[in-house]
Amino acid sequence: MIKANKNYGRLQGSYLFSEIAKRVGKYQVANPDAKIIKLGIGDVTKPLSPEVIKSLHSGVEQMGAADSFKGYGPEQGYAFLREAINKMDFASRGVELQDDEIFISTGAKEDSANIQEIFSQDIKVAVPDPVYPVYVDSNVMAGRSGEFVDGRYENFTYLEGTADNNFKPALPTDGADLIYLCFPNNPTGQVLTKEELKLWVDYALENQSIIIFDAAYEAFITEDNIPHSIYEIEGAKRCAIEMRSMSKTAGFTGTRCAYTIVPKELVIKDEDGNEYSVNQLWNRRQCTKFNGVAYLIQQGALAAFTPEGRAEIQELINYYLENARIIREGVENLGLTYSGGVNSPYIWFKTPGGLSSWDFFNKFLDECQVVGTPGAGFGKCGEGYFRLSAFGSRENVIEAVSRLTALKC
Amino acid sequence: MIKANKNYGRLQGSYLFSEIAKRVGKYQVANPDAKIIKLGIGDVTKPLSPEVIKSLHSGVEQMGAADSFKGYGPEQGYAFLREAINKMDFASRGVELQDDEIFISTGAKEDSANIQEIFSQDIKVAVPDPVYPVYVDSNVMAGRSGEFVDGRYENFTYLEGTADNNFKPALPTDGADLIYLCFPNNPTGQVLTKEELKLWVDYALENQSIIIFDAAYEAFITEDNIPHSIYEIEGAKRCAIEMRSMSKTAGFTGTRCAYTIVPKELVIKDEDGNEYSVNQLWNRRQCTKFNGVAYLIQQGALAAFTPEGRAEIQELINYYLENARIIREGVENLGLTYSGGVNSPYIWFKTPGGLSSWDFFNKFLDECQVVGTPGAGFGKCGEGYFRLSAFGSRENVIEAVSRLTALKC
Repeated sequence: MIKANKNYGRLQGSYLFSEIAKRVGKYQVANPDAKIIKLGIGDVTKPLSPEVIKSLHSGVEQMGAADSFKGYGPEQGYAFLREAINKMDFASRGVELQDDEIFISTGAKEDSANIQEIFSQDIKVAVPDPVYPVYVDSNVMAGRSGEFVDGRYENFTYLEGTADNNFKPALPTDGADLIYLCFPNNPTGQVLTKEELKLWVDYALENQSIIIFDAAYEAFITEDNIPHSIYEIEGAKRCAIEMRSMSKTAGFTGTRCAYTIVPKELVIKDEDGNEYSVNQLWNRRQCTKFNGVAYLIQQGALAAFTPEGRAEIQELINYYLENARIIREGVENLGLTYSGGVNSPYIWFKTPGGLSSWDFFNKFLDECQVVGTPGAGFGKCGEGYFRLSAFGSRENVIEAVSRLTALKC
Repeated sequence: MIKANKNYGRLQGSYLFSEIAKRVGKYQVANPDAKIIKLGIGDVTKPLSPEVIKSLHSGVEQMGAADSFKGYGPEQGYAFLREAINKMDFASRGVELQDDEIFISTGAKEDSANIQEIFSQDIKVAVPDPVYPVYVDSNVMAGRSGEFVDGRYENFTYLEGTADNNFKPALPTDGADLIYLCFPNNPTGQVLTKEELKLWVDYALENQSIIIFDAAYEAFITEDNIPHSIYEIEGAKRCAIEMRSMSKTAGFTGTRCAYTIVPKELVIKDEDGNEYSVNQLWNRRQCTKFNGVAYLIQQGALAAFTPEGRAEIQELINYYLENARIIREGVENLGLTYSGGVNSPYIWFKTPGGLSSWDFFNKFLDECQVVGTPGAGFGKCGEGYFRLSAFGSRENVIEAVSRLTALKC
């Protein structure tokens, strides 16, 4: 008799953003005329840049002609894109990588969900709290969580980000083999300096841990001394996998292209003492379970790594950063505890009136027709917090801040 | 200390098609002037059809304009595409499905690799031999295989397809909870009649098994009484998940779009007796680990489900089927045992001269500059067999058959 993976029964509620979409959908049906402002899921709103569009059209044209048609591509991504990424994102910052340490994929969500597969089931997983839910849920599904007790999975190490530590978690004290870090952080918008990130690299090296460094928001960094890549820290190539995404940088949330760096220096053992190159483990995983990103999408993505394309994309990022400034100042003027909004498109703030996250979500939707993300959806430490994203239009962002300012809690 | 997933150490060699690509690459470097004909990986060669190209361009245009730009889409795929697929592929054959039983993905490779995740780790897996390697390797990685002994994993049930049973495996006698079937078959090209497929559905219902029915090649069926969908068989909605692909049908190998059917009638339990809807399990898996297919790709895919687009695609299929006929007749004229080539783009034949699969692969490459797929790469029963694909150009197919005919073994 076939049996279900019982770990699915341990997952809490639906996936956060599906739940939000459901509530918003319900509200919209009940209030068909309501003009809802969505600053929830962190989805971009500006169209793809002209250079990317031009390159996508060219990709489509090539697919329509016999002499340029492309069938199966390399599972790891086309060499032209890996090379361009290496130059633009890493070599330019003094980080030396080989092109085949870069794996192109359809998303950082996919990669951050799948990466745990290459590790043993009985490792200790450390996740931030608040956290991007994918890190947690993918490890629950894989059977690493234990039971859910008092709002937490019993086998995970939680890296707490609270107002007390300025949303910069302390190093784990109860063990951590696989450590998920995200900076600039989703959802708090907080960042680490080089010195602060070095503490994590040193911890990982000392404890033979691996850090999954989610750098999906690195393009929003505006301040000096904030590392864009974990490989700017010495020793990181021996303990870290880095994930990057074009979703927020180049507006690819609905176009799907990301990349993950797996250095060849990363070598680990299994329980029997056999050695594995982590780069080769991931390569095998991708070759077996993935068939590469569509050629025409990679062709489009390439434009984002040319000087012209990059300049256009920087304009998009600046636009969203100005939105972030507007939200941040609005929140600050209300006297609310907050973080983010400087090196990040997210502003994370304490709900006014001491409301619970979901109560504030409902109130903000009902009374202001604004959708944000309830902090509790990101974990226990998120309770009483709320996330707003700067990815809306300027007009909507200004209007949302004005409604927030007028809201009585 | 972090540890590797030791199951990766049980995988045999590299992924088959990566290995072939490596050998061909090596040969090409050593013989830069050789004009290699590739009938190996089963990759299409004709460009995307004009309707699909038009629709892709339109998708790109929409992504470049503020009022039509699309960010994150539904993880399950856009309603417009699920609806069109339902009408064209299923309703038209009298199969009643709900649109939300159809999940759009980037590939049948991905889906057939990922589907095992939603089931318990201790289930008995039955895989065909010869087999598309992804079914096997994904279950090895998940720890269901046991050790590799004498050319086989000790915990799997092997469904043998040999000349003796005309490449139609018999029902399992030693148990099977999760059963992978692929018809028209890759690699043998063999098909099952409705009566033959009904035996499997009845077996699965009786034993509370689930069949993963890989129908990636259904569009190549030319004969009557061969089911295009397993749901043409009564009771299949209570025991089968069906996978479809646009790769071979519409030339999407490098464009990436597929779909998987998970009926709501499928209900299973975990080891503690808790009930799960398989549709909801898969939905949760996809929502957590996947972020949908690029909007513009889905827009392009839609054109394949319009009458105009379908007519163009049928021309492509007919072209490949004519290639298949040419290869099949060539093989038949050589007096070799074979199957396929009628309802399938694959021809599976006994190697001339009794050579091993890889010996024949090397000889065929060295002496004829033709790449095929060594049967042994598909499993123990594939040893001594060879697969040729009909996806080349007419010219190449004719030339390859002529070289095969002249080859002395």
